[in-house]
Amino acid sequence: MSSLKGFQIQRENTIKNLKAEIKNGRVDAKIIPLLEEINSIPYYYTTSSCAGRIVVLELPQLGDKKNAVFLGRWHRMVYRREVEETFRKSSRGYIWFLAQSPIFHVAAYTMEDADRLLKAGYAAGFKHSGLKNIGDKIIVELTSTERLDAPIGRDGLILCSEEYLELLVENANLVIKRGEEKLMRLKREVSSIKDEYLGGGGQNPLGGGNTY
Amino acid sequence: MSSLKGFQIQRENTIKNLKAEIKNGRVDAKIIPLLEEINSIPYYYTTSSCAGRIVVLELPQLGDKKNAVFLGRWHRMVYRREVEETFRKSSRGYIWFLAQSPIFHVAAYTMEDADRLLKAGYAAGFKHSGLKNIGDKIIVELTSTERLDAPIGRDGLILCSEEYLELLVENANLVIKRGEEKLMRLKREVSSIKDEYLGGGGQNPLGGGNTY
Repeated sequence: MSSLKGFQIQRENTIKNLKAEIKNGRVDAKIIPLLEEINSIPYYYTTSSCAGRIVVLELPQLGDKKNAVFLGRWHRMVYRREVEETFRKSSRGYIWFLAQSPIFHVAAYTMEDADRLLKAGYAAGFKHSGLKNIGDKIIVELTSTERLDAPIGRDGLILCSEEYLELLVENANLVIKRGEEKLMRLKREVSSIKDEYLGGGGQNPLGGGNTY
Repeated sequence: MSSLKGFQIQRENTIKNLKAEIKNGRVDAKIIPLLEEINSIPYYYTTSSCAGRIVVLELPQLGDKKNAVFLGRWHRMVYRREVEETFRKSSRGYIWFLAQSPIFHVAAYTMEDADRLLKAGYAAGFKHSGLKNIGDKIIVELTSTERLDAPIGRDGLILCSEEYLELLVENANLVIKRGEEKLMRLKREVSSIKDEYLGGGGQNPLGGGNTY
């Protein structure tokens, strides 16, 4: 566990950077209220997040994410035709169509704080959540099980039919829709944590709760 | 953290159950040496595991795993035709074709032991590993990022072509192959942990190391 002072400094810097990112329009508007709610509790700060997305990727090899090329990326539901339009940019390797649920990484002050947030995540439907780093920093990963990962072509050639692509898009859009519902549930759960901490009536050991 | 006594009792019972499962042929032969290696270290015991698999599933709704029906399941590489043969059993809902990397859940005695195993997992390529339970029990989840999750049909109808199914099968088999390589690397990493613990020359606080 990091020291109180160390945690506070890292927390303030990270929140400052996030505010700059938000100002520059680099953070999906859909998750800003949730990020702000988490960051208003002095025992937590968000380190990275994604609201959920639909992606068309070109991968030279399976799992070779380092060399992946994004052909298309949306943080919303999509139409089949806008997916198809990205295929023109493909050239070499496997073309994959992915839909990913929201994912959050949140630093927690103590293991107890981490555990409390994990429970909130599970309650909101983020069933694949867990702790990532231990030792120097405690990071809670909140994520869900809904996803879609399908290869759809190779070396510039699309190997699936229009009808099949329609089925993929339909299911990808469902991943996004479910993700949005879970984001709302998570915000409510985080508000409950905040109420618990504030409701104790005791002194806030970290001071300066609402930095937002 | 559970008490020393509590940990030992749970460990012995879990390993006894695993031995019975192995005797009854319910554990994939491919991972038995690795499970035995983990369970030979007194600070760990495996609670569940899968060597990686290819699955054909029927899901009434996206993410509705509770009501999923297995149409086919293999812990090895597959041929396209054996996948196709499972489609006859489908009737209602989405048909999904999945390939999953190996996954292990291991109880650890202390957070330090959990951290050591996590590092071994990362080193062996299990990049999506983390801690699952905290509080009463510490569970390390070792898992990887390679996977395939594609809907291939609906209400008894297959919506992808033979050629496209060939592409899916090719990529699913790659997931299995990569998984097998990582299992071998993980076994070597776990052996290193064992050597470290044994090499200390000190007394083993838990006693009775090699229960296998």
